[in-house]
Amino acid sequence: MDEFSFIQSVQQTTYQQSNIIKGIGDDAAVFREPAKDIVTAVDVFVEGIHFSKQIMRPFHIGYRALAANLSDMAAMGATPVSILVAVVIPKRWSTKDLEEVFSGIKFLAKKHKIDLIGGDTVSGSDLTLSITVNGTVERGKACYRSTAKSGDIVFVTGSLGDSQAGFHILTNPETRPFQDEGFYIKRHQMPSPRVDFAKALTSVSRMSLNDISDGIANEASEIANASNVSIHLYEDAVPISKSFNQFPSSLQYKWKLFGGEDFELLGTVEEEEWPKVQYAAEQTNTKLSKIGYVTLNEDNKSRVYLINNKKEKVILKKEGYTHLK
Amino acid sequence: MDEFSFIQSVQQTTYQQSNIIKGIGDDAAVFREPAKDIVTAVDVFVEGIHFSKQIMRPFHIGYRALAANLSDMAAMGATPVSILVAVVIPKRWSTKDLEEVFSGIKFLAKKHKIDLIGGDTVSGSDLTLSITVNGTVERGKACYRSTAKSGDIVFVTGSLGDSQAGFHILTNPETRPFQDEGFYIKRHQMPSPRVDFAKALTSVSRMSLNDISDGIANEASEIANASNVSIHLYEDAVPISKSFNQFPSSLQYKWKLFGGEDFELLGTVEEEEWPKVQYAAEQTNTKLSKIGYVTLNEDNKSRVYLINNKKEKVILKKEGYTHLK
Repeated sequence: MDEFSFIQSVQQTTYQQSNIIKGIGDDAAVFREPAKDIVTAVDVFVEGIHFSKQIMRPFHIGYRALAANLSDMAAMGATPVSILVAVVIPKRWSTKDLEEVFSGIKFLAKKHKIDLIGGDTVSGSDLTLSITVNGTVERGKACYRSTAKSGDIVFVTGSLGDSQAGFHILTNPETRPFQDEGFYIKRHQMPSPRVDFAKALTSVSRMSLNDISDGIANEASEIANASNVSIHLYEDAVPISKSFNQFPSSLQYKWKLFGGEDFELLGTVEEEEWPKVQYAAEQTNTKLSKIGYVTLNEDNKSRVYLINNKKEKVILKKEGYTHLK
Repeated sequence: MDEFSFIQSVQQTTYQQSNIIKGIGDDAAVFREPAKDIVTAVDVFVEGIHFSKQIMRPFHIGYRALAANLSDMAAMGATPVSILVAVVIPKRWSTKDLEEVFSGIKFLAKKHKIDLIGGDTVSGSDLTLSITVNGTVERGKACYRSTAKSGDIVFVTGSLGDSQAGFHILTNPETRPFQDEGFYIKRHQMPSPRVDFAKALTSVSRMSLNDISDGIANEASEIANASNVSIHLYEDAVPISKSFNQFPSSLQYKWKLFGGEDFELLGTVEEEEWPKVQYAAEQTNTKLSKIGYVTLNEDNKSRVYLINNKKEKVILKKEGYTHLK
């Protein structure tokens, strides 16, 4: 199958978003967004680094790559509307597997009424997916990391550590079975970015938001640094799944604080606006937990403190993994 | 150097475009475009497929990747304003070389007042650059391939085949020297996308445009198919550089018609509007050649015909190379 045929096979024939003027089929796509701000981000995923066929079906690889992008949109309080997908395709990948990757992308895109408006396909040695997502947000309403203030409540959606637990189950088959294996595996292979919850938050006037791609310790640190504040978190308030305590406690600690890839949202909001956040959670069936508060810095340093289960206050270093080491 | 430090090292501290609300530094970038249409495209470039360090400095690799993207914008009649750069970085690439890649990107971006507003960096086995470019165009003024009509003049900017000649010189050092080597090599390593010319064309009411990334035969075929017309080209009107005839005539023929990567513009416009195109060329110091005309289809088939130097009329098949074979 040549490049042209492959593009034709994944191309949409109609677009769900009325602001798409031209999708795939010319040198570039065209859209119009007169009333809102446009939010855009790119993420790149490489076989062997971010995913492997051993534990992910091609469908999951596509789904999960887009989920990570949509999570970036949610973390901005934005509604994703369109994507461009650039893919590097190794010869060893069959057309069927490639189509499955695109099925995974399209499955999640359809769920959120997102249009595939452009892309590029080239050959290379590792399957590489680079997805650019465009979203919209009411003017001036994008949620930045830099807006947290002392006194804010710190909250998080969902439960943490599940994705890493799923990864552990998939990569350590000899230790199986576990309770709720399907749940953890799904949380790893098909995470649900908090797009609907983020969309429901528009009435909140000031909110800092980050999505948990690299672990809550790292994400909280990013908010603290960008806002020049410190954050106190209570370990016993960090939400975990009901059968999470079946795993060794050292792994629980690692996964829930540093594990990442849960694609939940971490945010801060002032006390008076907290009911609005709770309401958004109810409206969208989103589990919501208050896990700490924002404080002024001590010694002029933005830090994340953890009040652990032994009631000790420790400094939580960012340990979310960083590529390129 | 870790990912965070590298991003900091290439990050812009100020933005040239006033519509950029948030650049690098959060989960996504934010911009506003109330009055114009937004044009967006992604291109991906892989080491060993699209470029190699043997014949390109890292600076040229970055420059050329962006040049190809900007050429897509020019082909839509759009003005590029911002880019997102996703890069896969192999361990064997030094930080210095990587910074040089970004220098090449930034050099061309600065020339066109384009802001780097986002990106992603991950490790992998082949250097891979995926650049998403956002541009703007007056509402409803994007130039599509599908608008050519019978009777239109077919024109092209610049000279064709130079990039392939430069590639030939670089990859066949034993055959050197050639006349004007520096010129051809520069046309390969640092092509000039026709952004300024495209921007000057706004007064033309209907124009089909394509940029020549895959050879004029292929690009003309794309316009013909999208517009459901045929195109007649005169070989002796296809513009070549003055010392181009130093190369074997079979290579000249191949390079100018199928060579590609010259990043010139191929367009069609009705006779009455031709003076506007000529004026845009004069204003922007762009070489412009009338090379053929658009006709109705014969036997209901969109074709590209070449009236060759022997005055024979042949059907020109698209032979621009296609990846994924």
